[in-house]
Amino acid sequence: MSRHHISQFTVEWGDCDPAQIVFYPNFFRWMDAASLRFFRAAGVPPWREFESVSGILGTPLVDASARFLRPASYGDVLDVDTAIDEWRGKSFVMSHIIRRGGTRGARVCPTASGRSCAHPGSRPAGKCPQLVRMSGYSSAPRK
Amino acid sequence: MSRHHISQFTVEWGDCDPAQIVFYPNFFRWMDAASLRFFRAAGVPPWREFESVSGILGTPLVDASARFLRPASYGDVLDVDTAIDEWRGKSFVMSHIIRRGGTRGARVCPTASGRSCAHPGSRPAGKCPQLVRMSGYSSAPRK
Amino acid sequence: MSRHHISQFTVEWGDCDPAQIVFYPNFFRWMDAASLRFFRAAGVPPWREFESVSGILGTPLVDASARFLRPASYGDVLDVDTAIDEWRGKSFVMSHIIRRGGTRGARVCPTASGRSCAHPGSRPAGKCPQLVRMSGYSSAPRK
Amino acid sequence: MSRHHISQFTVEWGDCDPAQIVFYPNFFRWMDAASLRFFRAAGVPPWREFESVSGILGTPLVDASARFLRPASYGDVLDVDTAIDEWRGKSFVMSHIIRRGGTRGARVCPTASGRSCAHPGSRPAGKCPQLVRMSGYSSAPRK
Repeated sequence: MSRHHISQFTVEWGDCDPAQIVFYPNFFRWMDAASLRFFRAAGVPPWREFESVSGILGTPLVDASARFLRPASYGDVLDVDTAIDEWRGKSFVMSHIIRRGGTRGARVCPTASGRSCAHPGSRPAGKCPQLVRMSGYSSAPRK
Repeated sequence: MSRHHISQFTVEWGDCDPAQIVFYPNFFRWMDAASLRFFRAAGVPPWREFESVSGILGTPLVDASARFLRPASYGDVLDVDTAIDEWRGKSFVMSHIIRRGGTRGARVCPTASGRSCAHPGSRPAGKCPQLVRMSGYSSAPRK
Repeated sequence: MSRHHISQFTVEWGDCDPAQIVFYPNFFRWMDAASLRFFRAAGVPPWREFESVSGILGTPLVDASARFLRPASYGDVLDVDTAIDEWRGKSFVMSHIIRRGGTRGARVCPTASGRSCAHPGSRPAGKCPQLVRMSGYSSAPRK
Repeated sequence: MSRHHISQFTVEWGDCDPAQIVFYPNFFRWMDAASLRFFRAAGVPPWREFESVSGILGTPLVDASARFLRPASYGDVLDVDTAIDEWRGKSFVMSHIIRRGGTRGARVCPTASGRSCAHPGSRPAGKCPQLVRMSGYSSAPRK
């Protein structure tokens, strides 16, 4: 089973737009933060340290998609449940489920995912396995 | 042919992350701004005015997806080319192509799209046609 | 003694700029969030509810200032210590001290303050005392 | 006379909060962008190039302050008028005036300023004059 990690974020006043709901690019901001916390929880050091041993400073997104089922507003606490769905040779797919009001709460984003490049720029292809190993990925899908 | 509109944005220092490239949620921020400019260019009044006649204050996103082909960094000028791809009964799909360095420039986001709800909340279903009519939508695809 | 409240925020990758430190407008973002948490901790309901009884939807800033002593970067946990320094007839002054690494940690922002209008728009002047009473303000300075 | 530069920004939907006005940290975001445009207009190359000759990658803020006189909302076009008010040995003070509706328009921020460090980190003190010379600074105040 793939490791997964839950990160918590509070929706702030300034995250909401004149319609009083979350301005949706902020959901991607929280997913990005959740990705980093996933790696940190898995034992990957901060990018600034990881860079010196691996040449990797962040993992640029190749594509992203999300579905928004319910709005969220300031004061809401969001749980972002993050897992790695797939490792490919040079990239990996992360998925996120965003809930409001606890881990059994209503799904705000029932599904979101992003594929990231594990070898940005001209970095050598052999570095990805570090992220793979550390993140405890296995090929069995999460329930 | 569907109307389309090009909006221009400059990537700022603060839009970039420690890897010196655009922090990707900002691309969705620019797409959202481009959507509003598309409607404004089509003759739709600002949401605050449109609300009083239609009950619509913004069009909440139902889903979003984007592919990122090339990075962009501060100082880059981005052209976001926006069109409406499809009108459905209660929602519509907008697509964006983001280029760097002019309308014939390199594609940063070769494809991005979002489906928005045209009837947020409990607003009556008959209001969508206003947006349709004003945006000059026709069923022929854009080239 | 005036009530004070400590809010905690984690600096995310996307909060940092190409120099790898916090893009400074984000400090004001956290101060704004800390202001709202201060009021919530004092018993003031969310603005959306408070509006219906008081006509007040947020308290627009009149001026703001901050000093930045040390940088912060992604992964840092910031404590924002917020208090109300002064109530005037139609506005109030809030101050914030931002530390890194716990309540006895190094000061990132040794001093920051903002004066807010408690009567935005044409709202009646008698509504401010609600915020005053609820926030437990007294004229004695904090240590 | 000190050189000054006017940068233009459009307030977007996502820059506004549930009270339908600009979420104020965004004003600092625009001031930061205006600072960089000021330097670019003065002939300073992008930071990524300037760094290689000067060791300077951005000029971290030491303090910032602003007064907010009028609100702005989405659709407003803001003119940010930027000048250098003072050069000190290791820092400089920039000031901004933000107007709405053209260079003779109403002042949204009648006064804002920030002092920045021209020698971040352990960079040598002799590099600042480059920024001074290029920015065309003279000790006479702007009108």
